[in-house]
Amino acid sequence: MALIVQKYGGTSVGSVERIKNVAKRIAKTRAQGHDVVVVVSAMSGETNRLVALAHEIQAYPDPREMDVVLATGEQVTIGLLAMALQNIGVAAKSYTGWQVAVKTDCAHTKARIESIDDAKMRADLQDGRVVIVAGFQGISSHGDISTLGRGGSDTSAVALAAALKADECQIYTDVDGVYTTDPRVVPEARRMDTITFDEMLELASLGSKVLQIRSVEFAGKYKVRLRVLSSLQEGGEGTLITFEEDENMEQAIVSGIAFDKNQARINVRGVPDKPGIAYQILGAVADANIDVDMIIQNVGNEGTTDFSFTVPRGDYQPTLDLLGNLKNTIGADEISGDDNVCKVSIVGLGMRSHVGVASKMFRALAADNINIQMISTSEIKISVLIDEKYMELATRVLHKEFELDQTKERA
Amino acid sequence: MALIVQKYGGTSVGSVERIKNVAKRIAKTRAQGHDVVVVVSAMSGETNRLVALAHEIQAYPDPREMDVVLATGEQVTIGLLAMALQNIGVAAKSYTGWQVAVKTDCAHTKARIESIDDAKMRADLQDGRVVIVAGFQGISSHGDISTLGRGGSDTSAVALAAALKADECQIYTDVDGVYTTDPRVVPEARRMDTITFDEMLELASLGSKVLQIRSVEFAGKYKVRLRVLSSLQEGGEGTLITFEEDENMEQAIVSGIAFDKNQARINVRGVPDKPGIAYQILGAVADANIDVDMIIQNVGNEGTTDFSFTVPRGDYQPTLDLLGNLKNTIGADEISGDDNVCKVSIVGLGMRSHVGVASKMFRALAADNINIQMISTSEIKISVLIDEKYMELATRVLHKEFELDQTKERA
Repeated sequence: MALIVQKYGGTSVGSVERIKNVAKRIAKTRAQGHDVVVVVSAMSGETNRLVALAHEIQAYPDPREMDVVLATGEQVTIGLLAMALQNIGVAAKSYTGWQVAVKTDCAHTKARIESIDDAKMRADLQDGRVVIVAGFQGISSHGDISTLGRGGSDTSAVALAAALKADECQIYTDVDGVYTTDPRVVPEARRMDTITFDEMLELASLGSKVLQIRSVEFAGKYKVRLRVLSSLQEGGEGTLITFEEDENMEQAIVSGIAFDKNQARINVRGVPDKPGIAYQILGAVADANIDVDMIIQNVGNEGTTDFSFTVPRGDYQPTLDLLGNLKNTIGADEISGDDNVCKVSIVGLGMRSHVGVASKMFRALAADNINIQMISTSEIKISVLIDEKYMELATRVLHKEFELDQTKERA
Repeated sequence: MALIVQKYGGTSVGSVERIKNVAKRIAKTRAQGHDVVVVVSAMSGETNRLVALAHEIQAYPDPREMDVVLATGEQVTIGLLAMALQNIGVAAKSYTGWQVAVKTDCAHTKARIESIDDAKMRADLQDGRVVIVAGFQGISSHGDISTLGRGGSDTSAVALAAALKADECQIYTDVDGVYTTDPRVVPEARRMDTITFDEMLELASLGSKVLQIRSVEFAGKYKVRLRVLSSLQEGGEGTLITFEEDENMEQAIVSGIAFDKNQARINVRGVPDKPGIAYQILGAVADANIDVDMIIQNVGNEGTTDFSFTVPRGDYQPTLDLLGNLKNTIGADEISGDDNVCKVSIVGLGMRSHVGVASKMFRALAADNINIQMISTSEIKISVLIDEKYMELATRVLHKEFELDQTKERA
């Protein structure tokens, strides 16, 4: 008998019929003798409806009040799911974020979980009940309702699993696991039986939408055994995110390929090459709350230097405007940019022990005339910035080059 | 400068536009220098939507979970109204029932308020904020979300006014005050400037839907100054519910007329006339959770007696079935009934000091050939049970007979 935390997303609970199906699936897990804690999102479409209502009232809704409104979505689902379970004879009780004391900081609409009180849940499990908890929400240190940001229900599930020391945290979603890349782009993409935590973290941060990155970070921090499964089809094993790197098993050189269109490149040319210039430019961007991703600095001519960096596409024009105003202060020759770019990344634990992975990647792209604009690397990933129109092609080319379509156990 | 509690019902906050209008009205009250605590209902239609969802899942939804689902309706409105106020420059903060500790008993879906903690609200008022509280909901002694039953937001408002010792509790609704009777039935019906608490209590309990009866009881218990106003048209004074009977002012003999179609008559004929027989019959009905309203007992022939009483129309058949099963036990000759009946009542404080009010009422009904089936009286009201088809006619006849259409100040 194990303690399992199951998380069902908005699509999985998107209708009365689907809520009833989720109840049946939970009942099956109960019937296998397991204790179950369930985390649910709002019914699909509900959060968007609430956001739209708020924006009709206020152009920039007050974050505290936004959370009051948004948190209702999950609250409806927990009550309905508890009813659906009781209806098929499974004892169940629902809790909002504040009721199980999911304590967060006060950063409304993007709060971070600080602690969870497991007393109530433990008592209910002891009494043989399924415990249902509203995902995405908590209570701030001021006693206000807080929410964790889009996709926050994944984080709620992992945090609950950590607090309860659950044996496994199962994330049910509309895909049946983690794929080598998006199957909509590469039909040959394979579902992985396992993926290491480090690889998953890179994939999540590089644009893979299967798991929210904070939930993966949380799982890593508290060593939560995490599994991604399909809520639509039954019987699959999904993908298990593992911590142990099996020494006997040769690591896959490349495990997965991620891509991300939410990119724009900014160029700052001909600034005086003196200490502090990078801070002067990037500090101003950071102060405007704009996330900088890839950064490159090149030595230019006659004591000047060139900067390039990427920002989310929505921040492209604001960043250009901001630097335009700074142009004289920093003494730049030219501010320019390009918002028709994308980032394609290969991720794999095996890269650590293999040389030549980067050159293999660059050669494959060059063979198809795909020009690389920027490169960024870490121990287990290589990202390139390329023209947006080559995104699908580059992904397919790399998927083939690293033989990700071959059915083999991480060989 | 006064402290005013304002309550806006579902119709008043039924759309984004209406929520913005409510915000403007609150801003006006603030601009007059008053402190304002606002209680709101769910947007009209929302509670019905949630109830329907729950019933799709479970034929008889679990009351605890029903409250979890239902309480979201008001939670959405408080957040949106706070945004609307901030949007026009009025500082405001919203609170759910549990946040201001509206403590209730554990009778889910029909909980009763036990206490309210005013500390948070007082601090916000001190800081110059408008405080917005979700009506209809509270937190049970088990820490669960509870709701007060339909119309419970009126009760929330009055309870908050009592806890805060507010100068006035204003109930904004889709009518502009309390009328002598329903204007849809009697076009000559007049809005009353004032009505006494006792009269309002009778009218509410007799079928007038302007105020929920529990809110009136609460107002009476805690001496809350209560006013009914229109949320749709501005500038009216509405109707003030007073506690002081002005000694210098002659009481109206009849202040208002209420009617109620939710009635069915049950007859139990020829039961042995012995002590305890009333309890045997009515106790069984009460045990089935059926409310008995009017009761009549007549001496019959040869040591037998006849009972008649009224129940809500939805309980008509269950009551007949119940007594049918008991017929032999209680030794009744016949169980029969009629569910095409209604109750028409006249209410007025002046009745206490005037004789002949009842005979005047009966004469007026007789003149129009309206047969009276049952009569029930209290110090300040007389109710008659009549054939349902005469309801509107009887109301009009009595409205005219007691000169309620005359514009006069309670003369």
